[in-house]
Amino acid sequence: MDHLRRIGALRRKLNRAGLQGLLITHLPDVRYLCGFTGSSAALAVTRYKARLFTDGRYKTQAAEETQGAQVEIAAGSPATAAVQWLGAQPGVLKAGFDPVTTTVAELGRLKEALPGRLRRSLLAVVEEPLVLPLRQIKDEEELGILREAALVGCRLFEHILTVLRPGLAEFEVAAELEHKARLLGAEGMSFETIVASGPRSALPHGRATRNPLPRRGFVTMDFGIILKGYCSDMTRTVFLGSPKREERSAYQAVLEAQESAVRAVREGAICGDVDEAARGVLRREGLADAFTHSTGHGVGLEIHEPPRVGAAQDSRLAAGMVITIEPGIYLPGKFGIRIEDMVHVTRTGGEILTPATKAFIEL
Amino acid sequence: MDHLRRIGALRRKLNRAGLQGLLITHLPDVRYLCGFTGSSAALAVTRYKARLFTDGRYKTQAAEETQGAQVEIAAGSPATAAVQWLGAQPGVLKAGFDPVTTTVAELGRLKEALPGRLRRSLLAVVEEPLVLPLRQIKDEEELGILREAALVGCRLFEHILTVLRPGLAEFEVAAELEHKARLLGAEGMSFETIVASGPRSALPHGRATRNPLPRRGFVTMDFGIILKGYCSDMTRTVFLGSPKREERSAYQAVLEAQESAVRAVREGAICGDVDEAARGVLRREGLADAFTHSTGHGVGLEIHEPPRVGAAQDSRLAAGMVITIEPGIYLPGKFGIRIEDMVHVTRTGGEILTPATKAFIEL
Repeated sequence: MDHLRRIGALRRKLNRAGLQGLLITHLPDVRYLCGFTGSSAALAVTRYKARLFTDGRYKTQAAEETQGAQVEIAAGSPATAAVQWLGAQPGVLKAGFDPVTTTVAELGRLKEALPGRLRRSLLAVVEEPLVLPLRQIKDEEELGILREAALVGCRLFEHILTVLRPGLAEFEVAAELEHKARLLGAEGMSFETIVASGPRSALPHGRATRNPLPRRGFVTMDFGIILKGYCSDMTRTVFLGSPKREERSAYQAVLEAQESAVRAVREGAICGDVDEAARGVLRREGLADAFTHSTGHGVGLEIHEPPRVGAAQDSRLAAGMVITIEPGIYLPGKFGIRIEDMVHVTRTGGEILTPATKAFIEL
Repeated sequence: MDHLRRIGALRRKLNRAGLQGLLITHLPDVRYLCGFTGSSAALAVTRYKARLFTDGRYKTQAAEETQGAQVEIAAGSPATAAVQWLGAQPGVLKAGFDPVTTTVAELGRLKEALPGRLRRSLLAVVEEPLVLPLRQIKDEEELGILREAALVGCRLFEHILTVLRPGLAEFEVAAELEHKARLLGAEGMSFETIVASGPRSALPHGRATRNPLPRRGFVTMDFGIILKGYCSDMTRTVFLGSPKREERSAYQAVLEAQESAVRAVREGAICGDVDEAARGVLRREGLADAFTHSTGHGVGLEIHEPPRVGAAQDSRLAAGMVITIEPGIYLPGKFGIRIEDMVHVTRTGGEILTPATKAFIEL
């Protein structure tokens, strides 16, 4: 990963924001900027220096992983050490912190750790996020990993089709997906695997329970893996047994909505318009009320990143973003259907990273 | 779960703190208080009412799970809806929020959502956490689940002993642990499974990599499951091949340190003293510098909860707490060893919830 380039891009943003330093405590941001993957870290960046603070457990790992920043083992809290270091750097009058990932208590502690003259002046709220906009635009190496992660997801789906059968418990399906994921190289799952079958498919976020898969009904599987720190995310809904006409046509409506939104993806598209591309299809089918969530979200080092692809969201897609497109309908007591792809935003359109079939599958 | 009792206990704390209401946005706190397990929620509690806010995805689930609070589906952010509701309750002049789990940005948004006259006055920092102290003391039902979760951990350890062999990749060991965990009923793992073998065992938080287990050397496995929302956590270190005298004596030192700390656990014990019970043993063996972290932490709905059982921590253990005791030593380039149990604090001592053997195992 080109960490020096990333820190360089961050420095240009710092300059434009009138800051001489930045405190980074959100771990995915730290990882993005300098490569360190430990669970205890703070990164301090000034115009000329970058220093990673971690604790004694990570001495060896930090030395191995960190690029573009010096490593310092802090005796106490890494964030406190980072702020004190920033305060001691000549020329650093204002250092930003991210209000979105800094708690009220943490900010209080950081200020208390500063000498009196700096307590009121040093730390400044960063109004516009500085690191997240960089992270939203994936570089080639990141795209390579996300592509690979998404393809592992597709292989998991293909595999699970050979396993699904009535009577198998939902959690056994989840167990099989997760075990196979590990064997295919995943570091773990990017969120709790959702397997929701029969009437439970009407729960948008149904856990995998002890309930057996039904003889006839939908099975929604929403799952993602973590590969080299990057998250995949996909959903497929299949049918066990013989569907009724209503079930088949509902599936068709969700699929059309999903494909319509994918077609709306391109550099410059407004997120609310992409959402509307899906929502409008479902509205025409009388299913608007059954689509109870947003169409999608960014994905990368975190499973949920900006942008939010939801109704009336006025932010624009940019080339290099990777987002999900995942409309769904939920009819309580009856059934639910969701179809989700990961989509890479390009200048000319959306490139689907999860090419597993979305045809109506009867098992 | 006795959610009404929990909300009642919280109300008594509210009264003592001079607050008429409380905003709860930290999901484990929400789950603890009213049983709702969804990923989007805010709970508002006043002296007479409690209301859970979530979004449309969770309509059915919230109705099924929530106890002791009315459910309201919010069109926008649940936290914003909760704060506006608190502001509209008669007699609510001050409503607390938790600075430890509320970000600076979120607080700003919440204040903006309030009418002018309430913006400055309604929300008050809760100086002493109100919900966490309740959560730290586990009731019988919680202890039952934690006991069950810990025993699943022990079964995983017994199972993995039949699997470990030189040449197997660390991630295959993790995969086997995780798959078996699912089949034993786990909802997932409580943290990323650590499998660190050979010289990598000297990394306290070594991920499970593609590295093969060595012909001779230590294998440290640190893993936990989630059962009904509650986390287990245990570590065992075993040896592949024939150990040298130094390796055997180092293991013995860590085991003595671990057992010494377990013996120091009882109601009223000072956390720093429990830490010192382990640290002192390692100091006498000349291994103080190799023990680079704290002795343990609380565990429950979250994998890391207070108290911190670390050097110079002056908080006291209380009956009903469940903590980990996990000293370790890390000798870079050579090897590392960690042994961890979950321990229930009682009036008379510490009850080990993870009774899997800690004897030196050669495989």
